[in-house]
Amino acid sequence: MIEFEGFTPVYGGVCAAQGFTAGSVRAGIKAGSGKDDLAMIYCVKKCTAAAVYTQNVVKGAPIIVTQRHLQDGFAQAVVVNSGNANTCNSNGVEIAELMCNLTAENLKLDPQDVIVASTGVIGQKLSAEIFEQNIPLLSCCLSEVGSTDACKAIMTTDTRLKEFAFEFEIGGKTCSIGGISKGSGMINPAMATLLCFITTDVNISAEMLQKALNEANIDSYSRVNIDGDTSTNDMACILASGMAGNAEITDANEDYAVFLDGLCAVMVNLARETARDGEGATKLIECLVKNAPSLQAAELISRSVISSSLVKAAVFAADANWGRILCAAGYSGADFDPLKVSVKMLSANGEVLVCQNGVGVDYCEEAAHEVLSADEVVIVIDLQGDNPDNQAIAWGCDLTYDYVKINAEYRT
Amino acid sequence: MIEFEGFTPVYGGVCAAQGFTAGSVRAGIKAGSGKDDLAMIYCVKKCTAAAVYTQNVVKGAPIIVTQRHLQDGFAQAVVVNSGNANTCNSNGVEIAELMCNLTAENLKLDPQDVIVASTGVIGQKLSAEIFEQNIPLLSCCLSEVGSTDACKAIMTTDTRLKEFAFEFEIGGKTCSIGGISKGSGMINPAMATLLCFITTDVNISAEMLQKALNEANIDSYSRVNIDGDTSTNDMACILASGMAGNAEITDANEDYAVFLDGLCAVMVNLARETARDGEGATKLIECLVKNAPSLQAAELISRSVISSSLVKAAVFAADANWGRILCAAGYSGADFDPLKVSVKMLSANGEVLVCQNGVGVDYCEEAAHEVLSADEVVIVIDLQGDNPDNQAIAWGCDLTYDYVKINAEYRT
Repeated sequence: MIEFEGFTPVYGGVCAAQGFTAGSVRAGIKAGSGKDDLAMIYCVKKCTAAAVYTQNVVKGAPIIVTQRHLQDGFAQAVVVNSGNANTCNSNGVEIAELMCNLTAENLKLDPQDVIVASTGVIGQKLSAEIFEQNIPLLSCCLSEVGSTDACKAIMTTDTRLKEFAFEFEIGGKTCSIGGISKGSGMINPAMATLLCFITTDVNISAEMLQKALNEANIDSYSRVNIDGDTSTNDMACILASGMAGNAEITDANEDYAVFLDGLCAVMVNLARETARDGEGATKLIECLVKNAPSLQAAELISRSVISSSLVKAAVFAADANWGRILCAAGYSGADFDPLKVSVKMLSANGEVLVCQNGVGVDYCEEAAHEVLSADEVVIVIDLQGDNPDNQAIAWGCDLTYDYVKINAEYRT
Repeated sequence: MIEFEGFTPVYGGVCAAQGFTAGSVRAGIKAGSGKDDLAMIYCVKKCTAAAVYTQNVVKGAPIIVTQRHLQDGFAQAVVVNSGNANTCNSNGVEIAELMCNLTAENLKLDPQDVIVASTGVIGQKLSAEIFEQNIPLLSCCLSEVGSTDACKAIMTTDTRLKEFAFEFEIGGKTCSIGGISKGSGMINPAMATLLCFITTDVNISAEMLQKALNEANIDSYSRVNIDGDTSTNDMACILASGMAGNAEITDANEDYAVFLDGLCAVMVNLARETARDGEGATKLIECLVKNAPSLQAAELISRSVISSSLVKAAVFAADANWGRILCAAGYSGADFDPLKVSVKMLSANGEVLVCQNGVGVDYCEEAAHEVLSADEVVIVIDLQGDNPDNQAIAWGCDLTYDYVKINAEYRT
């Protein structure tokens, strides 16, 4: 976990903040999945709310319905299913609306205050009956310790829980923020994300909440790529109950800065765990680009390197085939001087310099293999420019036989 | 093979055109490779010449030297090695120049008239000695039946020969054009290509030759993607001896149009074979996008679909998971109406419609599996626009365990 100064990790995930409960139920949406697949998050109080969505032109029905419901900047509950994306279905919007209506009815809310999300196979019909039977049950069993259950229920090919929460202070008031997230394949968040639900008890206007979410997203999910496929159903949303009792944040003041840090603490950690849990992955790959000619160049290069199938396959084999790293930097779209590039690989097992001023240096292949055998590997690219602010990080994972296995057999 | 009307397939590859010989030798550039790894193409007459190069910022030393040598639009020989990319080496340009100098000396040419290319691992030193010993030998053994040997010698992880030649007429004169090509991984030609060498006896100015190569490239290699990695060493070049005796082509007249068709016949077939022979591939995937809102939209969508790891893994498993196709279309960057999309899959085993007006249709999964089990699979996406000219094709291959295996073990 990446630590953020002034933010104390706490248990509770999306229930860490005051006012929130969560839970899950096994609705049987995907035959034979054997796990809970319907989750709900609820707040006792109407919250300010914000979301970012996939940039994919083909959008899941839940995205369309949620966008409509969040126009006013308020929400009070989230309902999510896994096992079916509810995308490219003739009755998709109808089903998504039904999910909101049933949630609202059982929790005694306005359907406009419900956020809906779905994840799973695209283009498979969904029956209304499943929700008619299970949403009433689920609404009755929400609890203050329900975050982990909800987190498990939204997983598809994920193998690891992605759940974080932090406690911090704003204006002398103790505040909390926490989130859960899912996503393992079809992950290339394009100014949006996969599925991520965050709650906080900070008192903040809907407008500033949206601004903070947009900013935190740029430094977290927008720096992740697993397989280059931007999903149709990506969504990250946040609900703020205001129950911490701080003075409402209505502009980009000091309190806003603290809140933004807290949001980054949750989102950066969720994003890193998402990369680590990429389909079939055995390793988290972090690429740090330093001293680039521009910030944009640093961003392009770091993303290009962690996206390269060839770099990913080499890291899987713990093979320091650094030429592939230079190649990926070279086609990133960034302009830079190839003769000023140095590349270092580091991990808990040590570090090794493999390339300096654009050409290979003598290094010990066995030592490099040892470095790359760790489960977190950092590739540091130094472009020897004179502005240390032109720096960016991106996260990805290795490419393994299991990525192919998982995706060749996903529907079977 | 794609047939082009008026163009008769012939044997001979790069030696089909009058004046050309070729050959190869086993220089032992990559220890233990057990195959020829140094190839040469030569023309008895100085030729007009043109080339397109990788857009990668990190360029192999042979690219830099060849760009310099082709500034005047003339060449007479090509020397190529596999087993080492001669890229990111401190003495790379020196070695590439040495290759040209030795070739020129032995064939009694000006070194400026030699094209040099290399393919293999990036960042591994190359010794001068290997070329000093082998280029004189190779220069002595060029022959009119040497094309296939040269084609084999430039292969790296390729498993199939990529060699085509056609005979045709311009102004009553019989002309020939032929080419050889290599490339299997690190293939995402960005307005350039992989390694491709083409010869013709058509009489054409260097300027029109360059124009034709650029145009043919857009419809051939620029429509191929195997793994998204644009190589540092991509190059396609063409030499025209003029020995067919046609009136020199100096502007975009009717003769030019015939020549361009011939060039497309060679390059489209080489490009398709390159996609079919993608690392680890078991299938050629063709994506045809019809009736798009614009030509650019058709191009973006077709490329995005054949580039999607998830589509590729599904085709490997012969699984008609068409939601992934809509998803890839949706993030292609093209603007289109998702509710106007229909998707059909077809092959020698039949055809199946899986999606109409953006939603799934009932189809038989077994029949779809049968269609996708063929070794050439076509995905047809109809966007129901009113301009049939807004159509594009792209070629790729499936993603298999062997892609991971080949690239995890490439250097070992």
